[in-house]
Amino acid sequence: MKLVKRLLVLALLPALLFAQTSNLQPYDTLAVTIFKKTLADNWAYETLYDLTTNIGHRLSGSSQAASAVEWSKNVMEHIGADRVWLEPVMVPHWVRGDIEEGTILANGSRGAITLNITALGGSIATPTQGITAEVIEVKSFDELGALGDKAKGKIVFYNRPMDRTQFDTFNAYGGAVNQRGRGAIEAARAGGVAALVRSMATRLDYFPHTGGMGYVDSVTKVPAAAISTRDAETLSELLKTEKSVRVRFKLSAQTLPDVESHNVIGEIRGSEKPEEVVLVGGHLDSWDKGQGAHDDGAGCVQSIEVLRLIKELGLKPKRTIRAVMFMNEENGLRGGIAYAQKERPGERHIAAIESDAGGFNPRGFGVGDSLAYSKLVKWAPLFAPIGADKIELGGGGADIGPLARQRGVPPIGLNVNSHRYFDHHHSDNDTIEWVNERELALGAAAMAVLAYVIAQEGL
Amino acid sequence: MKLVKRLLVLALLPALLFAQTSNLQPYDTLAVTIFKKTLADNWAYETLYDLTTNIGHRLSGSSQAASAVEWSKNVMEHIGADRVWLEPVMVPHWVRGDIEEGTILANGSRGAITLNITALGGSIATPTQGITAEVIEVKSFDELGALGDKAKGKIVFYNRPMDRTQFDTFNAYGGAVNQRGRGAIEAARAGGVAALVRSMATRLDYFPHTGGMGYVDSVTKVPAAAISTRDAETLSELLKTEKSVRVRFKLSAQTLPDVESHNVIGEIRGSEKPEEVVLVGGHLDSWDKGQGAHDDGAGCVQSIEVLRLIKELGLKPKRTIRAVMFMNEENGLRGGIAYAQKERPGERHIAAIESDAGGFNPRGFGVGDSLAYSKLVKWAPLFAPIGADKIELGGGGADIGPLARQRGVPPIGLNVNSHRYFDHHHSDNDTIEWVNERELALGAAAMAVLAYVIAQEGL
Repeated sequence: MKLVKRLLVLALLPALLFAQTSNLQPYDTLAVTIFKKTLADNWAYETLYDLTTNIGHRLSGSSQAASAVEWSKNVMEHIGADRVWLEPVMVPHWVRGDIEEGTILANGSRGAITLNITALGGSIATPTQGITAEVIEVKSFDELGALGDKAKGKIVFYNRPMDRTQFDTFNAYGGAVNQRGRGAIEAARAGGVAALVRSMATRLDYFPHTGGMGYVDSVTKVPAAAISTRDAETLSELLKTEKSVRVRFKLSAQTLPDVESHNVIGEIRGSEKPEEVVLVGGHLDSWDKGQGAHDDGAGCVQSIEVLRLIKELGLKPKRTIRAVMFMNEENGLRGGIAYAQKERPGERHIAAIESDAGGFNPRGFGVGDSLAYSKLVKWAPLFAPIGADKIELGGGGADIGPLARQRGVPPIGLNVNSHRYFDHHHSDNDTIEWVNERELALGAAAMAVLAYVIAQEGL
Repeated sequence: MKLVKRLLVLALLPALLFAQTSNLQPYDTLAVTIFKKTLADNWAYETLYDLTTNIGHRLSGSSQAASAVEWSKNVMEHIGADRVWLEPVMVPHWVRGDIEEGTILANGSRGAITLNITALGGSIATPTQGITAEVIEVKSFDELGALGDKAKGKIVFYNRPMDRTQFDTFNAYGGAVNQRGRGAIEAARAGGVAALVRSMATRLDYFPHTGGMGYVDSVTKVPAAAISTRDAETLSELLKTEKSVRVRFKLSAQTLPDVESHNVIGEIRGSEKPEEVVLVGGHLDSWDKGQGAHDDGAGCVQSIEVLRLIKELGLKPKRTIRAVMFMNEENGLRGGIAYAQKERPGERHIAAIESDAGGFNPRGFGVGDSLAYSKLVKWAPLFAPIGADKIELGGGGADIGPLARQRGVPPIGLNVNSHRYFDHHHSDNDTIEWVNERELALGAAAMAVLAYVIAQEGL
């Protein structure tokens, strides 16, 4: 495309609505300054590049997770946070081990077909020789239940895709992810010997996507693994045409004793009401796939970027702005729970803003508290210059959930373009080259503007 | 990120503004149907995959461009357009040739440094032995002019970056691209022997980005090439620290005689006013780099997808909806000019919608005609379910520019997220893996909804 001069009429709608009812000064010019500074400095991307390439993925309990704790502390000290500290938390220590392999054994002419397979997080291992069994495909637990004892001795294959027609891919994820979370339990209840789950991914490719799954004490534990969406299609086709389709697979995963890890916390102390805290956060742990770039290295560097922007611009927030790198969001939420449970005498959180939907183009915020929403919505025009002015009712995040539920802190989620997230999520495809530096930075800047406005105006 | 249930309050602002003043029925439910169908079918992406991998890039006059003409015709016939035809147009035939190489020759300890270099489109070749000369760096033509005869005999190196702090990268492009377009002319005027231009790219990487440049008859023609942004930084650093920095480079480009090519056109005839035409279009040619995926394979498949969606849904537009694959946008605009100049007795274009900003997430439309804008803005809420509801005044596109200027047809551009475009534009990095299927499809669907509403309601 060649240049076409465009007259940009930004933020027309919000301006019409709010121009006469709300005074945005002095935050409107400050917001633009913050947006421009984050783009000019490119700090968030360079910092995420460092985390993802020099440490890489960082599952709770791993040596990389421990390195990431030190790294976060150092980075926050380096950017001049007023105070940086660690808060200990015991976390699960599940390890994948060295062996993950799978093969489709069909009767027909295609012979053995290699599966792109990976253990779901929390799965037990298969026996050393693997599991070899016939496969039975279902799209839902209801369908599985209706099979009676036909699933007995079989590998239960869950193949309900994420609904492509959802406009927000998180809704599609929500409509499919119970297969991953409860698939092993329901497979065992039906007499199955294992669960294979179609990856939670929006498109057809060869990446298996891991993610959390659970067992219950009352039901036999069976191994559970994800296969790529393309393999799921292949397996399903074979099941339609072949008399019997078996799969053989091996997993070597195991759960080791809990280990100590840490939430990493840094803050800029409020100049007038330091006891009132505006929290910004992401989670430092990731699955042991790819580099944990979008999930959730992005949210971590964005939270630190909030502090850095405020420091570098010489702003003095009236209330404390605190960045928290939560540990163990992916397989336990221990960090989020521990942070909320800890008594902090004389301190009160007035809002918590989480970024955990990837470092994509920001479109606004979701506020999970109707009173806070009604107060915040008037600030929407501040975000119009970057097109992030959709303040919606409903939202938050996993790590700030305990704070919201136990202490009534209004939870706020950074909402971003969701179309690309599940191409990468929990897979070897979650790497730095898929992060755009401008989108990442503007998400951070939007958080900085919102955090600063709340720090000045209260909530 | 784990699932956080979100209450989506979509389109609150447009609803407040327009609910009482405009009746969106029946288009609101139809729009959602169109959005869902394009996501479900994934036709646009699969078709773009075919074009980009089986034909690849397709510069005007090349055999690939000729193949792309046949391909487009076949695809439009295949999806059941009522009428498909070619309109001949003579196009330039510039070829890059086999040789593109460059080296920085500094005096210091670093020795020779290979340049990632590519001829700008339209450049003459260097002499066979290449050009070797001292380099002088400028940031603007004013700066060059002020140098007096210091540029004489030198390679003029234009190194003004795209402004990172622009929120819309097209504005940053507009602020830098004169270096590419007029760099060779101004370098020669100052007595320089060649022009090297920092690539028009938003980030630091190793891809040289080509693009159009020009000569004038009154000024000596000198070769012109782009170097990657990282190389530009390196070269600039060396110029600060070394006494003399020379560059040697070779280009083998040449301009051959014009050849005949075609605009490719398909349409669904209007049921009531077939003589009134709503045009949707993109350009079929691309630079001879990468695969021309975002620029502008995306706009072509989106335009055909408009016809396909309308056919498949059994819609009968009152006015004709016509998809045009323009030839030669990149280095001549001959297709756009020829299309506008051709007399079409008894026919009248009432609107032209162009997609040529990449297959990224749609955010709305820019309307380059204030009367048309005032009529179209009321339909904004139709696009709110996919967040593409920003109807702005100003916009259009290069290929529909002649129609707008010569025949007063309101030009409308599909506006998309611009952050990623110039990471890919005109370089080997413009390939299919950087296109997200959902974003591509929703852009097409937004065009389909707008085209259909105009076809029914007029403009």
